[in-house]
Amino acid sequence: MTNEKIDYHAIRERVVRKVSQAMSAKRFQHSLGVEKATRTLAKLNGADIEQAGLAGLVHDYAKERSDEEFVAMIHEKHLDSDLLNWNNNVWHGVVGRFFVEAELGITDPAILQAIERHTTGDAKMSLLDKLLYVGDYIEENRVFPGVDEARALAQVDLDLAVSFETEQTLCYLISQHKSIYPKTLATYNAYVAHFKEDL
Amino acid sequence: MTNEKIDYHAIRERVVRKVSQAMSAKRFQHSLGVEKATRTLAKLNGADIEQAGLAGLVHDYAKERSDEEFVAMIHEKHLDSDLLNWNNNVWHGVVGRFFVEAELGITDPAILQAIERHTTGDAKMSLLDKLLYVGDYIEENRVFPGVDEARALAQVDLDLAVSFETEQTLCYLISQHKSIYPKTLATYNAYVAHFKEDL
Repeated sequence: MTNEKIDYHAIRERVVRKVSQAMSAKRFQHSLGVEKATRTLAKLNGADIEQAGLAGLVHDYAKERSDEEFVAMIHEKHLDSDLLNWNNNVWHGVVGRFFVEAELGITDPAILQAIERHTTGDAKMSLLDKLLYVGDYIEENRVFPGVDEARALAQVDLDLAVSFETEQTLCYLISQHKSIYPKTLATYNAYVAHFKEDL
Repeated sequence: MTNEKIDYHAIRERVVRKVSQAMSAKRFQHSLGVEKATRTLAKLNGADIEQAGLAGLVHDYAKERSDEEFVAMIHEKHLDSDLLNWNNNVWHGVVGRFFVEAELGITDPAILQAIERHTTGDAKMSLLDKLLYVGDYIEENRVFPGVDEARALAQVDLDLAVSFETEQTLCYLISQHKSIYPKTLATYNAYVAHFKEDL
């Protein structure tokens, strides 16, 4: 994949106003925080900084769309009908990628995949997937128990940060008796669990 | 399903020695404890006491078989090849039911299904499935944090006991960084999670 042909900076200039208009001021602040975090993590991990920053900026573009709009998109794109059993928390990434593509004109498959996976993760994540997954969790506006440990891990080892975030997310969901999307479990089994040990 | 035609007590007399010879003394003691617990729970919930007791007695029949024997059975019965990625903890129920059928001659599909599901649960459990799932967890030889709460819940509401057990099991597996079988998550989502709330 050669990123040289895509001018991510020019795309940012073109879409940034549309992103800000699609969400609350607070969420736009979060988006700018994730952009900054993914750029920093990209630099640390030898990835494309502009590509990672753009993924960070637009990852929550669809977050404030109505349930009806997500359901319509699930039908329009003929996505797995099991998605209809879920909610905004899953939809804004897994389905949100199609709003980013259709309305912001971003077609880079690596960015669209990272948006798709930014909440649930995946058993096999690309470097960009991980940058956005972790960047979303540790950006400077985040305040929750464990965020400092997550930030420290991300400075040292991106896979350890993925593992920590996944475990924390699962524990939080269980503590709240919230439903857990199967792909979140697949991420746990791939990045946290010691699979081969004798149970 | 009429259970009147099946003499569960006669089957017990026929298989009890074979069960005891298939496992350590400690595990046989556990099996007798589960038999007692499932009988008590069956009485409380208006289920067939003899059927539930037999399910309890034989549920761990295959637990001490070798990995090679489980793998051979997975191939022989043409089971989902994903099972090959798992281990004794999953196999002794999901695959173990076939050993119970072949070697103990127990063909009651309700008992075989309860054995299949006794470790992982299922999104839609029968009454017998629940009696064994919970009975295995609370039998009198069990000692672990939370067992008294589990026992108390089982006296009051079997579904609440299923919920409590599933949540505790998930938390334990995560705390140990152990792999989680997808069906365990399906049980959590069905019996613990408040699915429809706004996440």
